[in-house]
Amino acid sequence: MLGEIRGLNEECGVFGIWGHDDSAHLSYYGLHALQHRGQEGAGIVVTDGEQLRAVRGEGLVNEVFNEEKLKNAIGHAAIAHVRYTTAGGGGIDNVQPLLFRSSTGTLAIAHNGNLVNANHLKHHLERSGSLFHATSDTEVVVHLIKKSKQPRFREQVKEALSLLKGAFSILILTKDRMLVARDRNGLRPLSLGKLGDSWVVASETNAFDLIGAEFVRDVEPGELLIISDKGIEEERFAQMEKRSMCAMEYVYFARPDSNIDQINIHMARKRLGKQLAKEIGHIEADVVTGVPDSSISAAIGFAEASGIPYELGLIKNRYTGRTFIQPTQELRERGVKMKLAPVVQVVKGKRVVMVDDSIVRGTTSRRIVKMLKEAGATEVHVVISSPPISNPCFYGIDISSDEELIAANKTIDEIREAICADSLTFLSPEGMVEAIARPFDDETRGLCLACFTGKYPTEIFPDTVLPHEKELVR
Amino acid sequence: MLGEIRGLNEECGVFGIWGHDDSAHLSYYGLHALQHRGQEGAGIVVTDGEQLRAVRGEGLVNEVFNEEKLKNAIGHAAIAHVRYTTAGGGGIDNVQPLLFRSSTGTLAIAHNGNLVNANHLKHHLERSGSLFHATSDTEVVVHLIKKSKQPRFREQVKEALSLLKGAFSILILTKDRMLVARDRNGLRPLSLGKLGDSWVVASETNAFDLIGAEFVRDVEPGELLIISDKGIEEERFAQMEKRSMCAMEYVYFARPDSNIDQINIHMARKRLGKQLAKEIGHIEADVVTGVPDSSISAAIGFAEASGIPYELGLIKNRYTGRTFIQPTQELRERGVKMKLAPVVQVVKGKRVVMVDDSIVRGTTSRRIVKMLKEAGATEVHVVISSPPISNPCFYGIDISSDEELIAANKTIDEIREAICADSLTFLSPEGMVEAIARPFDDETRGLCLACFTGKYPTEIFPDTVLPHEKELVR
Amino acid sequence: MLGEIRGLNEECGVFGIWGHDDSAHLSYYGLHALQHRGQEGAGIVVTDGEQLRAVRGEGLVNEVFNEEKLKNAIGHAAIAHVRYTTAGGGGIDNVQPLLFRSSTGTLAIAHNGNLVNANHLKHHLERSGSLFHATSDTEVVVHLIKKSKQPRFREQVKEALSLLKGAFSILILTKDRMLVARDRNGLRPLSLGKLGDSWVVASETNAFDLIGAEFVRDVEPGELLIISDKGIEEERFAQMEKRSMCAMEYVYFARPDSNIDQINIHMARKRLGKQLAKEIGHIEADVVTGVPDSSISAAIGFAEASGIPYELGLIKNRYTGRTFIQPTQELRERGVKMKLAPVVQVVKGKRVVMVDDSIVRGTTSRRIVKMLKEAGATEVHVVISSPPISNPCFYGIDISSDEELIAANKTIDEIREAICADSLTFLSPEGMVEAIARPFDDETRGLCLACFTGKYPTEIFPDTVLPHEKELVR
Amino acid sequence: MLGEIRGLNEECGVFGIWGHDDSAHLSYYGLHALQHRGQEGAGIVVTDGEQLRAVRGEGLVNEVFNEEKLKNAIGHAAIAHVRYTTAGGGGIDNVQPLLFRSSTGTLAIAHNGNLVNANHLKHHLERSGSLFHATSDTEVVVHLIKKSKQPRFREQVKEALSLLKGAFSILILTKDRMLVARDRNGLRPLSLGKLGDSWVVASETNAFDLIGAEFVRDVEPGELLIISDKGIEEERFAQMEKRSMCAMEYVYFARPDSNIDQINIHMARKRLGKQLAKEIGHIEADVVTGVPDSSISAAIGFAEASGIPYELGLIKNRYTGRTFIQPTQELRERGVKMKLAPVVQVVKGKRVVMVDDSIVRGTTSRRIVKMLKEAGATEVHVVISSPPISNPCFYGIDISSDEELIAANKTIDEIREAICADSLTFLSPEGMVEAIARPFDDETRGLCLACFTGKYPTEIFPDTVLPHEKELVR
Repeated sequence: MLGEIRGLNEECGVFGIWGHDDSAHLSYYGLHALQHRGQEGAGIVVTDGEQLRAVRGEGLVNEVFNEEKLKNAIGHAAIAHVRYTTAGGGGIDNVQPLLFRSSTGTLAIAHNGNLVNANHLKHHLERSGSLFHATSDTEVVVHLIKKSKQPRFREQVKEALSLLKGAFSILILTKDRMLVARDRNGLRPLSLGKLGDSWVVASETNAFDLIGAEFVRDVEPGELLIISDKGIEEERFAQMEKRSMCAMEYVYFARPDSNIDQINIHMARKRLGKQLAKEIGHIEADVVTGVPDSSISAAIGFAEASGIPYELGLIKNRYTGRTFIQPTQELRERGVKMKLAPVVQVVKGKRVVMVDDSIVRGTTSRRIVKMLKEAGATEVHVVISSPPISNPCFYGIDISSDEELIAANKTIDEIREAICADSLTFLSPEGMVEAIARPFDDETRGLCLACFTGKYPTEIFPDTVLPHEKELVR
Repeated sequence: MLGEIRGLNEECGVFGIWGHDDSAHLSYYGLHALQHRGQEGAGIVVTDGEQLRAVRGEGLVNEVFNEEKLKNAIGHAAIAHVRYTTAGGGGIDNVQPLLFRSSTGTLAIAHNGNLVNANHLKHHLERSGSLFHATSDTEVVVHLIKKSKQPRFREQVKEALSLLKGAFSILILTKDRMLVARDRNGLRPLSLGKLGDSWVVASETNAFDLIGAEFVRDVEPGELLIISDKGIEEERFAQMEKRSMCAMEYVYFARPDSNIDQINIHMARKRLGKQLAKEIGHIEADVVTGVPDSSISAAIGFAEASGIPYELGLIKNRYTGRTFIQPTQELRERGVKMKLAPVVQVVKGKRVVMVDDSIVRGTTSRRIVKMLKEAGATEVHVVISSPPISNPCFYGIDISSDEELIAANKTIDEIREAICADSLTFLSPEGMVEAIARPFDDETRGLCLACFTGKYPTEIFPDTVLPHEKELVR
Repeated sequence: MLGEIRGLNEECGVFGIWGHDDSAHLSYYGLHALQHRGQEGAGIVVTDGEQLRAVRGEGLVNEVFNEEKLKNAIGHAAIAHVRYTTAGGGGIDNVQPLLFRSSTGTLAIAHNGNLVNANHLKHHLERSGSLFHATSDTEVVVHLIKKSKQPRFREQVKEALSLLKGAFSILILTKDRMLVARDRNGLRPLSLGKLGDSWVVASETNAFDLIGAEFVRDVEPGELLIISDKGIEEERFAQMEKRSMCAMEYVYFARPDSNIDQINIHMARKRLGKQLAKEIGHIEADVVTGVPDSSISAAIGFAEASGIPYELGLIKNRYTGRTFIQPTQELRERGVKMKLAPVVQVVKGKRVVMVDDSIVRGTTSRRIVKMLKEAGATEVHVVISSPPISNPCFYGIDISSDEELIAANKTIDEIREAICADSLTFLSPEGMVEAIARPFDDETRGLCLACFTGKYPTEIFPDTVLPHEKELVR
Repeated sequence: MLGEIRGLNEECGVFGIWGHDDSAHLSYYGLHALQHRGQEGAGIVVTDGEQLRAVRGEGLVNEVFNEEKLKNAIGHAAIAHVRYTTAGGGGIDNVQPLLFRSSTGTLAIAHNGNLVNANHLKHHLERSGSLFHATSDTEVVVHLIKKSKQPRFREQVKEALSLLKGAFSILILTKDRMLVARDRNGLRPLSLGKLGDSWVVASETNAFDLIGAEFVRDVEPGELLIISDKGIEEERFAQMEKRSMCAMEYVYFARPDSNIDQINIHMARKRLGKQLAKEIGHIEADVVTGVPDSSISAAIGFAEASGIPYELGLIKNRYTGRTFIQPTQELRERGVKMKLAPVVQVVKGKRVVMVDDSIVRGTTSRRIVKMLKEAGATEVHVVISSPPISNPCFYGIDISSDEELIAANKTIDEIREAICADSLTFLSPEGMVEAIARPFDDETRGLCLACFTGKYPTEIFPDTVLPHEKELVR
């Protein structure tokens, strides 16, 4: 379901290209493909070998860029970023890539993820005189590079990266190099591709498809790639630790046409739906419907496995976009539904299986269940294609704190009651791991299941903060 | 598939409400629900019993209106309109509702459809001194009312409507009445609903759902409703002729959550897909995929009936919206795909059944087939959930002229070759009628099949013009 | 002073060009020069010999047009219009030039001025079946042309124009001709110029200067020019009646760099100031200041003639433009001044002569006098470079009705008291006529002084309406 | 004349307020008054005692702020900034006030002026690990504060300020204090005022007039004011050095209604014009005209002293604003004049004295002289109300480098020839000092005349850079 409704937001997407005369336009298309990972702001920094130029702004990719701005962003290499939505103000300072200037050269940096030792590092840096503009973690990295005593730039970067704990996919651009790094746990996706002779990197592989590039391989956890006119150099800044790709990328965040570790997202979701049907066994119902857009694949899988027909029981309005005019309380109570509507004739008098990908606060689920019942559904059976989320995420997904997680505070039956469903079933963690079916053979198949199990793949510090708390740091 | 890609455009949507203090806001929501019927312009005219006020503009509903404009549009009744996209300029004059002022009072009118005797009537009116501003048919109606010798306004309107031939759903607003009429063949949909004590009318029933109104009944072909503070009066301006609802509304135009003649669109489409599978019999294939958004329901029906799994083989970018930056020819050739992308891992090495709702020029189908093959599909079997369109539409759907209709000029096998498909199957007209399953028992079940069969339910005049030709009239 | 502050608004400006490949761009520049005559809307219609194309919109010239729109408006001739600000809604219908389409060809029309027999003509036309869209007088002209029984188009136009009473400068464009007409009293300015081989017409001559065109002559009262590829034909639709150019054009409306009847506006204003000083004789004061922008020339003339130094005692903020954020009542009372500010050090402790061009309601004058006193002026002597306005204007200047005209209801001493001035002097009508010094030798030197004297140069009808009343016609 | 035409740009304006519940709105009005000092960007940072909130953006004050943004900026104190226009990109990073966050609290800073030892300090800071985002000098100040070993914040600030050389007016806001400082030479203006019980500071006094505040005194060179709920504390961070207010503030930059060191700008300019007339002695001419807007006061003074009548010989178009449509080369050559136009009837056949405030490159002067001659002026005598500018400014005025300064490379007669004038006279430095008439009795009366004389009031370093060079630092 819609992240903005539920308070479940991804932290950003990154894109980079080296060796193409039209790097700004290609970055623009790349960001388009990643738009679902961040709608607050977008930016591109290009280099022409001499100078870095930035085009950034708040809003959607379409709003931030125009032909004139891209034409002026001449260069053969670029890094780019989309930023996710927060309530906080002062947004301009946080729109990436960030630029840092010094007598030894200008540097741009883009970052996707969340560090768990950011506050620890910040305090340390502040004590030695570092100043911070923005509230993001990104500045920390540059300060660490700057503070490094290593003689060569690449060694400085490696030292800095080795100090970071948590999730990150980082792109750094200088006038003559692009550096690409991924955290040692591989918590966030980052892939490498080729477009003719140019190298491209992106948070999701669908960006390669959109620009017609070929997937080459994933960037390895702990790896640092240094791309320049001399080619690509593969280095490591850390040994890979327990491989831990965020399971929610498969369940909810990534686009259905992306692959992560060569597993297609749509197909993984469909298997999640089938697995769910298998775990439930038999369910008496007339139609299966999914909450658009992210749960459609799982719903189709569920229908296929259960034999209950899949129907379009809920429909999303494609044109709401930026709706500046909000229904009054009275109109809302009278039923004005701007974003999501039930298809009355599909659900009226029917026992409905409503497939969703997750439950966070429960308020959205409750609203949809009631919507279906008001439209005439006689029963609504909610089936969730992931286990209950009962723990906060420290790696970049803006899941609200414990108090807001309904599964952290209620039993499944209490949740069922809260959302007014006739039954409620979650997928088992094992079933989820099995359905995603990643090509690794440890117990979790290289997935991070922390928000379900509370087992964090990295150390967690007393001052580790959640993304949404950062805006409040004074 | 996307109308704008294919040159298959609907002509507009209308919405009206009588007896609600917030008529402007409710009209705004109503237009939202009808946004898919027209993206070029939108307008609302309200009356407060004394005066009519208009808010209109070019663009999407979200772009035309804002809170301030709606706040100033105070009134207890309103009519509203969304206008479809044309290439022509001078758009402002054609944004409806149109206003006409005279010493006997101001009148607003909104119209959905296309008249077949518009030119005939215009020439006649011009000879007696009428002047025309815009290129639409709508002015004709008002001139006819004005020219009527009948003593009472309602009789004038009835006389005027009785002279019109072709498709229309017309709303007229004066300071103290709302008049609602539908052509005698019922070519375009128009329904009546209630929201508390207020009467509402809309081109599609999903507008009722969005604002929480109840469906009451369809406006009958040849009927004129007169709604005022005294209630609703039901009159006829003509006897119903052969009932002829546009079949393409079911196949392609209407929203899946709307019902026409109480048939839900999604379910009709799913049945079209099933019927298609039945007609084909057996097909050797690995996956079924639909061209989003309009063919998804048919694809799911096809998958269900054929037993071949439905997969998300094609994905539409939700954020393209107004993309001002278009790929250069070079980038396009290199594969930059802004609106529609294949899901490589789903189709690679697979025999794909690609379900689409119709073929107009064939260029889009060809592009999608090639996209799937480049993504690795070994075979692409195109199945179309409607019969070949080989005749122009004179009732409001902007199907290009004969020369552009591939099915008017080529055999099915030639089309198959032109679109590079491994096989191509259209639904039979009989199968389509059967699958839509309208509750009428004549041969066509009250559907207009003219674009498939060439049998037009109304007289066609030598000077009958297609919608897109109007822009060129000098 | 600022029209928008005072409720004294001009009605529109027109521009036309025949015989230049870049007619759209040149019209755009022409409208720029005329922007002060109307800020509500702007439009250009071009012809390429085959077809008319319109670009129109609400807002300033800069906002309505952009390079893309102008590039598409290809044609060798154009007419253009800027529209003045009203409070009324439904503005789009009134943005000119208006287009009328018929089987005999399309026609565009732009009009500056106000007809006194518009309602009379409208009622007559309505009785014979004419329908009106907009609230402006412009449609009346086209309906009259259409209704004419004359065989040739030019005779139809002449007959129509001969029926009009009041003020008008009209441009008509068909695919192969531009027609230019000015009312028989010459109430509104209209000049003819040449740019190379192209003919240009404009409400004010500064439009010629801006595009580098040469002034040729004024269009004569009662004259109709027909311009086509065959050249210019000079015809008359009426005998010139008493020549009556609006005196307020000299006093307030026209741009200082324009000439009307070959009298430069700035120099006329300076003479008005000098004449005022002469009429006053001696005045004990320390500084002279003018209310910007329109009274600066008169103030400089007054200073020069009186020997009292001219100083910048009041300054206008150049950047207010569209200020969407208005001071709260509290802030306004505390003195927040967005548009006009006193220069404290210039007026503090000084006896100030404040020169303004006119007084309408008196509220603005009162506000400025108080502003000067709060800034420390010991005395404020208000001198007005025109006589008291005590009668409404029926010819296109949006002077509010009698009740709002302070000079219609109060003696000069009562006005002085109402505006808190230490003395108040108006220019005499004779002095004004003398100072403007037009090259005609009747008593008024060919000026319309109706708003000062109540002597209207045309018949006035019982149903003659003021411009601002038109918006209310139902 | 227009700065943007001539490449003579001021660097920014600052505004601050402490102790008013509507501090965001008042800052907005304050920035309005200072808009002429910077049109590239604007920002306001407020504090509510707990938290700092920023509203910033690129563009004019009207474009950056809206009611919604200001409503959310709740706080009883604020600092604000307008930024001047540069060609460079990456503007967002430079829009002030800048925010810096640390565990000891957030701090906002706004700065007007240019430091001469910025590069020196930056290199030093970088060596000890500081990182710089933006290209402005402002960050340097915060890094110096951060690096200070002083125990208390105010001592840290004083130490930092004491290290700065060059021009600055600095405002710092923390959650509970506002700090206000001006460089020890007093190169840029900064005044203190009161609005009821609230303290206000602004680069120009006209900001006080606009919001209804009272002028209290100028901030002293070398002074640091600390304003909090406890009141105002007056401290010094340095002894005042040679008082050196930029003379060009009087000649060109400041608004006519502002006072600097209690000298009104308009009156100073008028005296400059009079002094110029006195120095010239006798000149044979018919009319005096000024280049709008900045030279009008001087022209009036010149006319008054010379006895030659002042006329409006040149007029500026008020509506050009953001003109996105630029005349083609051909149209420009044909005479299309968007921003400035001669008043033909005023200058035709006349010997014209054209008063301007300065000559930088000479290209604008040449253009205006030619414009006047093409309009028929028989002679054009250019008189400049300041001495020749032959040296770059290191204190914040974006005068181009030596090569571009025509007076650095040509004799006065060569300049006269280059600009096609019949004669050319500059004001003498002594005359300028005398006319401005500041209340100080040293040789320059406390003015900085460096751009005229090359005598810089501060040390200049080998690596001192001009403002426009900063954008290029890599």
